[in-house]
Amino acid sequence: MQKRVKWLSFSLVIVTLLVLIVSAFPKQEIVNAGVENGYYGKKPKYVFYFIGDGMGMPQITSTEIFKGTLSSNNPMNKESLSFTVFPNVGIQTTHSANTFITDSAAAGTALATGYKTNNNILGMDPTKQIKFRSMAEMAKEKGMKVGIVSSVSIDHATPAVFYAHEASRKNLYEIAISLGDSGFDYFAGGGLLSPTGPKKDKPNALEIAKQKGYKIVNTQEDVMALTKNDGKIIAFSTELAADSAMQYDIDRKDRVSLADYTKKGIELLDNPNGFFMMVEGGKIDWACHANDAATTVRDVMAFDNAIMEALAFYAKHPNETLIVVTGDHETGGMTVGFAGTQYETFYNKINKQTLSFEEFDKAIKNYRDTVGPNGANLEDWLPVLSERFGLTELSDYDKSRLKDSLAASMIDPKKRSKNEQAYLLYGGYEPFSVTTTHILNQKAGIGWTTYAHTGVAIPVYAQGIGGELFQGSYDNTDVAKKIMNIMGLKFQ
Amino acid sequence: MQKRVKWLSFSLVIVTLLVLIVSAFPKQEIVNAGVENGYYGKKPKYVFYFIGDGMGMPQITSTEIFKGTLSSNNPMNKESLSFTVFPNVGIQTTHSANTFITDSAAAGTALATGYKTNNNILGMDPTKQIKFRSMAEMAKEKGMKVGIVSSVSIDHATPAVFYAHEASRKNLYEIAISLGDSGFDYFAGGGLLSPTGPKKDKPNALEIAKQKGYKIVNTQEDVMALTKNDGKIIAFSTELAADSAMQYDIDRKDRVSLADYTKKGIELLDNPNGFFMMVEGGKIDWACHANDAATTVRDVMAFDNAIMEALAFYAKHPNETLIVVTGDHETGGMTVGFAGTQYETFYNKINKQTLSFEEFDKAIKNYRDTVGPNGANLEDWLPVLSERFGLTELSDYDKSRLKDSLAASMIDPKKRSKNEQAYLLYGGYEPFSVTTTHILNQKAGIGWTTYAHTGVAIPVYAQGIGGELFQGSYDNTDVAKKIMNIMGLKFQ
Repeated sequence: MQKRVKWLSFSLVIVTLLVLIVSAFPKQEIVNAGVENGYYGKKPKYVFYFIGDGMGMPQITSTEIFKGTLSSNNPMNKESLSFTVFPNVGIQTTHSANTFITDSAAAGTALATGYKTNNNILGMDPTKQIKFRSMAEMAKEKGMKVGIVSSVSIDHATPAVFYAHEASRKNLYEIAISLGDSGFDYFAGGGLLSPTGPKKDKPNALEIAKQKGYKIVNTQEDVMALTKNDGKIIAFSTELAADSAMQYDIDRKDRVSLADYTKKGIELLDNPNGFFMMVEGGKIDWACHANDAATTVRDVMAFDNAIMEALAFYAKHPNETLIVVTGDHETGGMTVGFAGTQYETFYNKINKQTLSFEEFDKAIKNYRDTVGPNGANLEDWLPVLSERFGLTELSDYDKSRLKDSLAASMIDPKKRSKNEQAYLLYGGYEPFSVTTTHILNQKAGIGWTTYAHTGVAIPVYAQGIGGELFQGSYDNTDVAKKIMNIMGLKFQ
Repeated sequence: MQKRVKWLSFSLVIVTLLVLIVSAFPKQEIVNAGVENGYYGKKPKYVFYFIGDGMGMPQITSTEIFKGTLSSNNPMNKESLSFTVFPNVGIQTTHSANTFITDSAAAGTALATGYKTNNNILGMDPTKQIKFRSMAEMAKEKGMKVGIVSSVSIDHATPAVFYAHEASRKNLYEIAISLGDSGFDYFAGGGLLSPTGPKKDKPNALEIAKQKGYKIVNTQEDVMALTKNDGKIIAFSTELAADSAMQYDIDRKDRVSLADYTKKGIELLDNPNGFFMMVEGGKIDWACHANDAATTVRDVMAFDNAIMEALAFYAKHPNETLIVVTGDHETGGMTVGFAGTQYETFYNKINKQTLSFEEFDKAIKNYRDTVGPNGANLEDWLPVLSERFGLTELSDYDKSRLKDSLAASMIDPKKRSKNEQAYLLYGGYEPFSVTTTHILNQKAGIGWTTYAHTGVAIPVYAQGIGGELFQGSYDNTDVAKKIMNIMGLKFQ
C-alpha cells in the first residue's frame, strides 16, 4: 500500500512537471506575435528594413492606382507594388508616448529600438536620461555590416535614430558626430544639414568622420565606382535639393536614385557575416506634408524600386534574407476620394504634373521678385498650369481660389497672415503652389485633411526568414522587437 | 547493359512523377492565400461574417482612441476593439468592376459571392445577365441554418446581396420578395423600405413571407421571447429610425441593440448542422457619409459589442467556429488628424455629443418651420451647441461658418443652392448640422474629405477554424472565396 501511494505521488509529480514543461513552450499558432512569443526559427543573414516616411494605406493604394494609369489606357487598371504581394501582412499602431499623432523621431525610436518616447526625442526615453540601443547598433556589435540610406538628409530623424541618441532631433551637429562614431559601413542618400553646428563654428563633422576612417564620396561617378575595398562610406551627391535631401523623384532626371544607392549598398555590404540595411523613402512624407499627390506617388514608386533591388538580392538568397517594409506614420490625411468627385477617381490627371511643388515654388518666387506685390495676374500662369500640371478646365470656383492664392503668394513670406483660415488653406506653404496641387488632386479625386501627420494605424509587409512574425496587429515598438527577435539581438 | 538502361529510364520516370506529384501539392507557406491555394483543414460548423459598412482603418483607430477616453482620464489611453486582437490580419482592395471607389452593392456582391460587378448591381454580373450565388444561399442548400442581421433596413445592399439578385439595388420590392423566397432562418435588425412596391400597390412582401412560413416579430418583448420552436423569423422593431433602419447607437436608449439581435440569432440558429450568420454594422457608413464622428465611433462600438456575442459563443466552440470581421469600403475619407490641430487630437471632445446628426436635423427643421427663412439667430443655438455637442469655445471663424450654415439651413431644402462650393461645404446634408459636426470633429482633430466612399484598401480580421487563410493582401472577392473554401462551399 505504502509503495502504491509513493508510486502515485511520483506519477503525479511527473505529470505536473510534464504539464508545466509543455505549457512553458510557445503554442504553434502566432497570436499577435510579439517578442514575448519568442522565435526559434532560423536567423536571417541579410536584413532589409524599408521605411516609407509618411506612407500609410492611402499612399499605397494611390500609388497602385497611379502606376496602373502609367501602363494602360484601361481606367480600371491598377498595379501592385513589389511589397504589397509579400506573404505576411500586419497592422501597426503608430502613436508616440505623448500623442496619438507621432512625429518621425518618436516613430523612428519605436521602429529602431522597440521603445516608445515623446515626439522630438531621438533614441532616448521621455525623460531624456536613458539611451535606447538600436537594432543597427546591436547588429554592428554582432559583426554584421550596417548600411543606412535615406532620400532625405542622413541626419534626419528616421535615419538618425539608428545611430544617434539625442534629447532633441534638432541636435543636428551632435547627430552628425554620432554618425562618424557609429562605425557603420555605409551611409548614403542625402547629406548633412549642419556639419559645422548651428553657428557654423565647429569642426566639420565630415572631416571628423574622415579621420575616423570614412571615405566621403560626392559625385555620381564616384558613388557608382565604389567597391568593397573602399571601406566605410559616406555617399551623397553634391547636387542635392533643398534641406540637403535628394531630389523628389519627379525632379530627379538622371541623378542617382534611391534604388541606385540601395543596389550599391548591397554590393558593398555583402560579406560572410551578413548585413543589416535600413532604407528610408523620406520624401514621401515631405510631399504629403505639402499635399502634393503626384510628387508623393512618384516617390513611393522610387521607394518601391529600391525594394525591388532587395528582392533581386532575395531571389539569390531566399533562405538567408528578411525584408520588412512599413511606414512610420501616415502624412497629410490623404484619401482616395474627394467630395467634389464623389465615387469617381481620375488618377491619370496627376500623370500630367511634371515637377514637384518645391520646383514650382521657385518659379513663383522668381515671379514675385519680378512683378512685385501688386503685379500678379493669373493669366500669366494659365499656360504654366496647363503645361506643367495638365490643369486646363478650371471652374469659376477654381479660378477664384487660384487668384486669391496667387495674391497671397505675392506677399513677402515673412509678412503673410497667420490666421486660422489662412493656415487651413495653405498650411504655411507657398499659397499658389499648394492651391494648384489641391485643385489638381481634387480633380483626380484625392483629398487631404492636414499638413501634418495623422494617427491612423498603418500596414507592415514582410517576406523571408522570420517574416511570419509580422502577421497580426501590433504596436510600432513590436516591429523593432520582432526584427531583433528574428535576428537574435537582445531587446533590453 | 540493356537492363541497366531500362532501370535508369524507369528510375527517371519515377523521379519525374514524384517531382510532379510533390509540386502539385500546395506549399505549406500561405502566399496571398486565395481559393487557388486550396484549403485542406477542418471545416467550421459555425461561421460569423461581420461587415462594418464604411469601416476602414480610420474608423477603427478612431474608435480605439475614443473608447480609451471613456474609460480613463489619461489622454493617451486607448482600448483595443474585440476584433483588432484577432490573430489573423489581411488587407483587402475594395474597388468595383467599374470604379476604384465602390458602392455597397458591388462591394457586397464581392464579399458575398466572390465576383466583381459594377456599382449599383446586386449579386449579378456587370451585364446584368448572370446571377451569382452567395455563400449564404450555398450554406442554406447544404443544410446549415442562415441568419442575416443589419442595423439598416434588411433590404439594403449589404444584407440583400446575401439573398437577392437584382440588376439594381433600388429594386426594393423584388428584393423584399426574394427575402421571403430565401428560406433563410433569421432576418433581424431594420425593416423593409418598400414592402408594397414603389407605387404601394403590390401585395405586402411581409404578408407573402408570412404565407411562406415566416413569423414576423415587431416588439422588443416578442423578439426577446423568441425560441427555436418559432421557426423562420423576420424580426425588427416597429420603433425604427429614418429609412427603416435601427436607431444610431448614440440615440438608441433602451431599444434592442445589434448585439441583442446577434445574441438572439445565435440562440435560434444553433443546431447540429451548424449555421452561417452575417451581421452588418450598416449605420457606421451613414454616419460617415454625414461626417459625424461621434455617431460613427458609437456605431463601431455597437458593432463591436455584436462581435463580442460571437466571441462568447466562440469561447464555447473554439474548434468549430470561424469569425471574420471586415468592412466593405471606407466612407467619408475620415482621418485621425486635421490641419487646424496639427499633431494633437482631442477625442474627449466628441464624448460630449449626445445625439446623432439625424436627431439634430429634426430640431433644425422644427426651428425652420417656426422662425421662417429670415428669422434665424445663431444666439438661439449656442446653448444647444454647448449642451448637446460640448461646443463652447467658438472662434470668429467657427461663428462665421455656423452663421452662414444656419442661414443656409433656413432655406427650403428643395430651393437650396447646388453649386460646387455649397456641395463641398454641406454635401447635400442639413447645412447647420454638418457644419456643427465638422467644427466639433475638427476641434477633436478629425478630418473628412468626402460625403461619399473612398477607395483605400481596408483591413480584414479573422479568428478560428481556417482563419489563417485571411493573412496577406488580397481582393474583396477573395474574402468570399476564402470563406467558401473554408466552409467547403463551391465557388463557381
